[in-house]
Amino acid sequence: MTLVLVGMGVHGPRGIPVGALEDLRACGRVLLDAYTTPMDVERALEELRSILGVEVTAAGRDLLEDAPRISREAAAGCLGIVVPGDVFTATTHDALRQEAVRRGVEVRVWHSSSVVTSALGRLGLHVYKLGFIGTLAEGPPQSAYRLYFGVASALRNGQHSLLLLQHDKEGGGLSVAEGLRLLRQAEDSWRLGAFSPDRVLIVASRLFSSSEAMRILRMEEALDADFGEHPHSVIVPGRLHYTEADSLRLILGAPDEVLSEAGRVPASLGSRLAESAIGKTRNALARFRGAVPASPGIGILMENVESYLYDAERFLREGNVELALAEAGYAEGLLDSLRLLGYARIDWRGPGDRRAPEGASYAVNPEATGSSGFRASLSTTVA
Amino acid sequence: MTLVLVGMGVHGPRGIPVGALEDLRACGRVLLDAYTTPMDVERALEELRSILGVEVTAAGRDLLEDAPRISREAAAGCLGIVVPGDVFTATTHDALRQEAVRRGVEVRVWHSSSVVTSALGRLGLHVYKLGFIGTLAEGPPQSAYRLYFGVASALRNGQHSLLLLQHDKEGGGLSVAEGLRLLRQAEDSWRLGAFSPDRVLIVASRLFSSSEAMRILRMEEALDADFGEHPHSVIVPGRLHYTEADSLRLILGAPDEVLSEAGRVPASLGSRLAESAIGKTRNALARFRGAVPASPGIGILMENVESYLYDAERFLREGNVELALAEAGYAEGLLDSLRLLGYARIDWRGPGDRRAPEGASYAVNPEATGSSGFRASLSTTVA
Repeated sequence: MTLVLVGMGVHGPRGIPVGALEDLRACGRVLLDAYTTPMDVERALEELRSILGVEVTAAGRDLLEDAPRISREAAAGCLGIVVPGDVFTATTHDALRQEAVRRGVEVRVWHSSSVVTSALGRLGLHVYKLGFIGTLAEGPPQSAYRLYFGVASALRNGQHSLLLLQHDKEGGGLSVAEGLRLLRQAEDSWRLGAFSPDRVLIVASRLFSSSEAMRILRMEEALDADFGEHPHSVIVPGRLHYTEADSLRLILGAPDEVLSEAGRVPASLGSRLAESAIGKTRNALARFRGAVPASPGIGILMENVESYLYDAERFLREGNVELALAEAGYAEGLLDSLRLLGYARIDWRGPGDRRAPEGASYAVNPEATGSSGFRASLSTTVA
Repeated sequence: MTLVLVGMGVHGPRGIPVGALEDLRACGRVLLDAYTTPMDVERALEELRSILGVEVTAAGRDLLEDAPRISREAAAGCLGIVVPGDVFTATTHDALRQEAVRRGVEVRVWHSSSVVTSALGRLGLHVYKLGFIGTLAEGPPQSAYRLYFGVASALRNGQHSLLLLQHDKEGGGLSVAEGLRLLRQAEDSWRLGAFSPDRVLIVASRLFSSSEAMRILRMEEALDADFGEHPHSVIVPGRLHYTEADSLRLILGAPDEVLSEAGRVPASLGSRLAESAIGKTRNALARFRGAVPASPGIGILMENVESYLYDAERFLREGNVELALAEAGYAEGLLDSLRLLGYARIDWRGPGDRRAPEGASYAVNPEATGSSGFRASLSTTVA
C-alpha cells in the first residue's frame, strides 16, 4: 500500500534521514537503487543492512524501469527504495512515483543531500548563485556546445556552473582532460572566452569520500593534469563574493591573482560583432573624409557617423550590447551610403562581408541548427 | 577539538543523516541554529532531544555570528550545530567553518536536503534545469529587477527559476501577491513578458509540512489568490520536458493548455529593438521612394535597404538577435543618409529617438546602474 522513496544523499547509506529508518524498517522489502548512480554496491548493501537491521537487495535497470511491477509490489504491502543523492534527480524515480500515484499507492518521500547544493557548499560558494548544471559526456565536439553556451550565460549573469563528468558503473568514465578538451573545441569554434586557457576552474574529485580532492586551477593546467579516480566534477565559478573568495583561499589555498580573475565575464557574440563594426567604421571614416567632396550634407552625415560611433562605444562599455550594435550598424549604413550613392569609390566592406551566403544558417544557438555558417561569417566579420 | 555541522534538511529534525547521530551524541554541547531559518524552535528542540538523547539548546544571532566564540567552544571539546536545510546555504555557517579551519579545529560536516533541489524534485521538475534562484523581499520596485532579469534569462535558456518569499521569525513575511506585485512592476518597466499576466507559475506553500499545498496558475490569478501561512515559494518553470509535464498533470492536475504554455520564452531587449528598427525602416522605405529623385545610385541604395531588412527579419526569426540588430541598424543608416544628404525632407526618426540624452545611462543590466534612461529610450523606440 506504500512506496517509500528515500534519498541517501552524498554521504552514502549513512546519509539516510533519521525519520526514514522507521518507514523503511516497516517495509516488507527494501531495494537499493544500484542502477542510476555508480557505486560500490556490495559495500552499500552491507552498510544498509547494518543500519536498517532488515534485508536489502540491489535493484538494477530491469526492475527500476518496470514502474508497473514496482507499483504492484508496493500495493501488495510496502516497498522501500533507497536512492543515492536526492530522490528525484534521475527521471527513473519520478516515473516510479508517477505510476504509484496513478494506481492509488501511497508514496512517502524522504529527501536527502544532493551533489548540486553540497558541492558548492563544500567550497563555500553561494548556492543561490548556481546558474547552470550540465553533464560532460563522450560525444562529438558539438555535443558540448549546449554546456559551452550554458556556462557562458551563467558567467555573464555572475553565476556558478556545475559540470558533472560522465562516470560509469565500472568506476571509469570521461577524464577531466577529455571533458575539458570538448569545451576547448567549443571555445575554438565560438571564441567567447568562456573556456579560454586562463579560465579559472575548480576540479572536485571523489567529493565526500575519504580520498576527496579539490583543486583550483586554470583551464590550461587542468587540461594536462591527472585527477585520479572517478567521479569528478568541474565548477566554473562566477564572480566571487568576498566570503566566497575567503573560503577558496582557506580551503583550496587559492592565490589572490587566481581569485581575482575567477568569473571573468566572457564576450558575447553581440559584443564581438559590435566591436568589429565600430572598429571598421571608425577606420573607414578617415578614408572617406579624404575621398569625398566637401558639402554641407556630407558634413552633417560625417558628424552623425562620429556621434553614433561614440554612442556605440559608450553603450558597449556599459554592457548594453544591443544598443551598441544598433548604433554601430546605423553609423556603418550612413557612411556606406556615400559609396553606394557614388560619392566615393571606397570598397571598405567587401562582398559577402555582411550579407548571408544563400542558404547559410546563422543560428547563434547551436541547438537550433548544426550550422557553422554563422561562425564562418563571424570569422570574416570579426577583425 | 571538533566542530560538527549537521544539516537537518527539509524534513525538520528527522531529516538529520543517520551518520550524524553518533557525531552529535559525542559532542559535549549541541546547538540548534534558530537564527537563519524561521521555525517552531521549541518543537524542533524537543524532537532533537528525543532523537539524540542529549541536551540541545537554541542558538540565536549573537552566538552564531560570534565565530571566534564558536571556535573556542569547539576547540575546548566538541561542539555540534544543527542547521535547517543543507549546511552552507547561509553564509553564517560558512563563516563558522572558516574560523574553525583558521584555528586548526577539525570540522565535520553532514549535508542534508535543500529546498533548492527538493522543491523541484517534489514536482517532478528536472533538477539539472535549474537556472536561477532568488529571494523576493520587501523593497522598492527596483529591488526586484535582478530577479526579473534572472528569471527572464533562465526562461530564455529553457531553465527553471526558484523564488523564495521572505519569511520572518514571527511566521509572517511577504505574501505571494506582494512578491508578485514587485515582479509585475518590473514587467511594466521592462515589458519583456517574463511576468506578463499569462505567465505560468507554480506556487508551493509550506513545502514538506503536513499542510503542504501546491498550485499551478497564471500570474494574474496568483496576484489575487491567498496561499495561507508561510513559507511560500514560486517556481517559474522553463520549457517542460514531457516527463515534467506528466508529473505536473498528475501531481497538480495541471490542464494541458497551461502545460503547453509553461516556459514561454520572453522577449529580449535586443529583439524588441530589432523588431522596432525593422518596422520603422520598412515603413519609411515606402515614403522615401515617393520623395527622392530617381537615380542609379539611389536605386542601388534602396535595393540594399530592402536586402538588409530582409536579412534582419530572417536573423530575428532564427533567434540571431545580434545580427538582426546590426543589419537593421545598417539599413536604417543607409536610408537615413538620403535625409541627411538633402535628397528627401522626411523626418521619420525624430529628434532624441535614438541618441542618448546627455548624461543618461543606458545599462540593460539594472545592477550596473539604477538608471531609467534606457527604459525611457526603449518606450520611445519601441512602437
